[in-house]
Amino acid sequence: MAQVAITLAQIAEKIGAKLVAHNDQLVVSGIGTLEDSTAQQVTFLANPSYRKLLDSTKAAAVIVHPKMLEECKTSALVMDNPYVGFAKLSQIFDNLPLQAAGIHPSAVIAKTAILAEGVSVAANAVIGEHAEVGAHTRIGPGCVVGDHSIIGKNSLLHANVVFYHDVVVGDDCIFHSGCVIGADGFGFAPDAGKWHKIAQIGGVEIGDRVEVGANTTIDRGALDSTKIGNDVKLDDQIMIAHNVVIGDGCAIAGTAGIAGSTTLGKNCTIAGGVGIVGHIEITDGVHITGMTLVSKSIKESGVYSSGTAIMPASEWRKSAARFRQLDDMARRIKQLEKNL
Amino acid sequence: MAQVAITLAQIAEKIGAKLVAHNDQLVVSGIGTLEDSTAQQVTFLANPSYRKLLDSTKAAAVIVHPKMLEECKTSALVMDNPYVGFAKLSQIFDNLPLQAAGIHPSAVIAKTAILAEGVSVAANAVIGEHAEVGAHTRIGPGCVVGDHSIIGKNSLLHANVVFYHDVVVGDDCIFHSGCVIGADGFGFAPDAGKWHKIAQIGGVEIGDRVEVGANTTIDRGALDSTKIGNDVKLDDQIMIAHNVVIGDGCAIAGTAGIAGSTTLGKNCTIAGGVGIVGHIEITDGVHITGMTLVSKSIKESGVYSSGTAIMPASEWRKSAARFRQLDDMARRIKQLEKNL
Amino acid sequence: MAQVAITLAQIAEKIGAKLVAHNDQLVVSGIGTLEDSTAQQVTFLANPSYRKLLDSTKAAAVIVHPKMLEECKTSALVMDNPYVGFAKLSQIFDNLPLQAAGIHPSAVIAKTAILAEGVSVAANAVIGEHAEVGAHTRIGPGCVVGDHSIIGKNSLLHANVVFYHDVVVGDDCIFHSGCVIGADGFGFAPDAGKWHKIAQIGGVEIGDRVEVGANTTIDRGALDSTKIGNDVKLDDQIMIAHNVVIGDGCAIAGTAGIAGSTTLGKNCTIAGGVGIVGHIEITDGVHITGMTLVSKSIKESGVYSSGTAIMPASEWRKSAARFRQLDDMARRIKQLEKNL
Repeated sequence: MAQVAITLAQIAEKIGAKLVAHNDQLVVSGIGTLEDSTAQQVTFLANPSYRKLLDSTKAAAVIVHPKMLEECKTSALVMDNPYVGFAKLSQIFDNLPLQAAGIHPSAVIAKTAILAEGVSVAANAVIGEHAEVGAHTRIGPGCVVGDHSIIGKNSLLHANVVFYHDVVVGDDCIFHSGCVIGADGFGFAPDAGKWHKIAQIGGVEIGDRVEVGANTTIDRGALDSTKIGNDVKLDDQIMIAHNVVIGDGCAIAGTAGIAGSTTLGKNCTIAGGVGIVGHIEITDGVHITGMTLVSKSIKESGVYSSGTAIMPASEWRKSAARFRQLDDMARRIKQLEKNL
Repeated sequence: MAQVAITLAQIAEKIGAKLVAHNDQLVVSGIGTLEDSTAQQVTFLANPSYRKLLDSTKAAAVIVHPKMLEECKTSALVMDNPYVGFAKLSQIFDNLPLQAAGIHPSAVIAKTAILAEGVSVAANAVIGEHAEVGAHTRIGPGCVVGDHSIIGKNSLLHANVVFYHDVVVGDDCIFHSGCVIGADGFGFAPDAGKWHKIAQIGGVEIGDRVEVGANTTIDRGALDSTKIGNDVKLDDQIMIAHNVVIGDGCAIAGTAGIAGSTTLGKNCTIAGGVGIVGHIEITDGVHITGMTLVSKSIKESGVYSSGTAIMPASEWRKSAARFRQLDDMARRIKQLEKNL
Repeated sequence: MAQVAITLAQIAEKIGAKLVAHNDQLVVSGIGTLEDSTAQQVTFLANPSYRKLLDSTKAAAVIVHPKMLEECKTSALVMDNPYVGFAKLSQIFDNLPLQAAGIHPSAVIAKTAILAEGVSVAANAVIGEHAEVGAHTRIGPGCVVGDHSIIGKNSLLHANVVFYHDVVVGDDCIFHSGCVIGADGFGFAPDAGKWHKIAQIGGVEIGDRVEVGANTTIDRGALDSTKIGNDVKLDDQIMIAHNVVIGDGCAIAGTAGIAGSTTLGKNCTIAGGVGIVGHIEITDGVHITGMTLVSKSIKESGVYSSGTAIMPASEWRKSAARFRQLDDMARRIKQLEKNL
């Protein structure tokens, strides 16, 4: 793969840091950690508890907070948020292969589809009738974009992504392989042991700078659309049901699931394996810990949990058995207090 | 997209309702809710707690139960099950694009495959040797149907669905994108830290009117087949392991998982995130609430749960710590009772 | 499908058993269970609690442990580990269709890709620049193998598998449909309600004899690679986050999730629906029961659990309500003991 070679001065400019360097023209070629960086790599100190490693790191330069500059023995890239600096640095050394420009001859594109300038469509991708793809957006191999779907500019669909019809996506979005956007929501009317399917007529609306992980599914709405705000980041294997609304800036970790018609406020973080029931509202700034079941609306920002802590199975069995008796135990405590 | 225009009289006939209308030739063009319907839309009242909205709705007509007719100020479509009426109404306004008829030139179809009349196969789909596809079934773009698999009539495979070999599917089924039917069950014989693979020789048998959600997986059986009954509805991201048997009319919500050789009776509902261990039997009419772990057979119909309720994390940590001491707490209560 | 016909003597040789037969040239054609085998089938007795069925089985022969030989009325295939015998027997009767040899004309293979002898690439598969595929490896229809990825010998990718770039896989591996290897890990630096993406520069390294289930995702590392050891078996719908390290011989069941930078020792078994938080270490020989949340490092081998047992929902609600009061209950018990 192409090797990146860049000077410290160039890095400082790209990430917006102040360079305090022995040699600002020093050329580096990669990123490492404080512990294992070579003299050709740049690293960062985001968590002050690792400050001791500043003494021993072999890195060419370290991204540090101004307060850490004095302790930094190497060249320093000084900025207020070194972790953001690391994120920007990582972009410089990104090795994602650039998809070939243009339309691969094996791609199947409807005549009524509209592709803006600079769009690339890879092998065996399929683009439906009246679909629109914005400038410089890349459609990976094996992707299927449904009829009347609209994708903004500078977005990226990795291989084998599926958009159904009427999916509207903003600019600068990333969709990872196997994610499915716009499949039918789970809606059926029960009738004597059988189910009448409720056609899912709504679409999916996704904002700008959204990332959707591998094999995540976002279902289309029943009447209105399912809505994902700007700057939302979804990890792998997440299930977003029909008519869910996710506010700007939320981040949701892998295998979480959100049931139908639930609304998430802005800037919430949902940890892995969390389940959120349907038809509830969660306010802004709520943080849910791993594998919690959110069974009711949350009106105050804060951190929430459910579940029990891990134990050796032999002891756990005793606690689990007693859990069944909890109400009885509580009543007996009350009785004891009365009798005393 | 094509706009549907239909009279109230035509709707009444299609959904099996009695029309009580100011003007039965009034033309409508969509569905809305009681709250936001326009004068060109039809809505429904299924839950009596919304009856007050009958006064203010602007809808052209409302599907109502006979008991609600008197309160209905608009035109009424009267039937015993208004929610079923809504489901039927939604079908009228479904906007799912119709796949182009016939076989797309880029599809790869084995010479020994048998396609009945009216079958459509979209771009880049692959159909294996001796596969059979029933009349008017639509195979979406990028789908792969394995050798010797048999699909009934009027079924629909959305884009990028995979059927392995020996998958047998009934009529009027819907498979959403990314679902995988017939991958190997998880069977290995342990042998000194290594694993001998047990070939998964059984297939998958799926009944009529089954719907399978996006990215759901149903594994093939080890010796016998994995079996899904008629009228079973599976949401997204569900895992059905080898040799599971699911009875007619069951509905299972997203991210649930059922381990190997477990049997579900008829008309069970399984909520999102539920896990069901292997080799157990669940009788008819069992309902499991969200994220419950079903660890043993259930012999009586009813509603079952496990887990704990959500709390602010700071309080939860205290309860979780006490959970570990539950057996000790129970013994101390007993001792207190003895000593009193 | 082709019918297998094989003598008991041939089976004994293939599975490494000692044959004690009435007729070692008896031809059989399949596998069954002790209960339902026909006279043309072979079965096995692995669990001694089924020994009574030895009297009534109609099977042509039974794979048995030497201790069971005396009770075996049929022909016997005697070996120390009958379950391993069954696994080997199953391979004889495996009915997985053999993919057509060679490169399908619809496959799109980069000119710089290197395919070893005997590689087969099915319809509509896409192989990227500088990718390498080892001898006799089969790439299924609709698969996408990214640039610079390297796959060993005798491996099998079922339909619609995606490898991103820089994925390195050993020999004798199996990847089921819809699995995605090498998508970006979930890494973002927060900055005033927005997120800066951390480019995921590491790859994925997978050992020999690894099996990956349908729709499972293994993300690429941030700086270093995500690493899966030899003989690891992953079921369907599993999420392996960036920089996870999984030791040799681990088996992980469906819908489990492991968060970033966590390390699993050797020969661990993780049951279905388990969640493991990030940045922890789990030692060798740890077994986690279904739907447990592993929230901290585990330093001793053994069996671990969390959660509560299933109950009728009406009783469960009482226990769940009391769970919130657990700390208070514990304090009141202490007070009672003091007062007594």
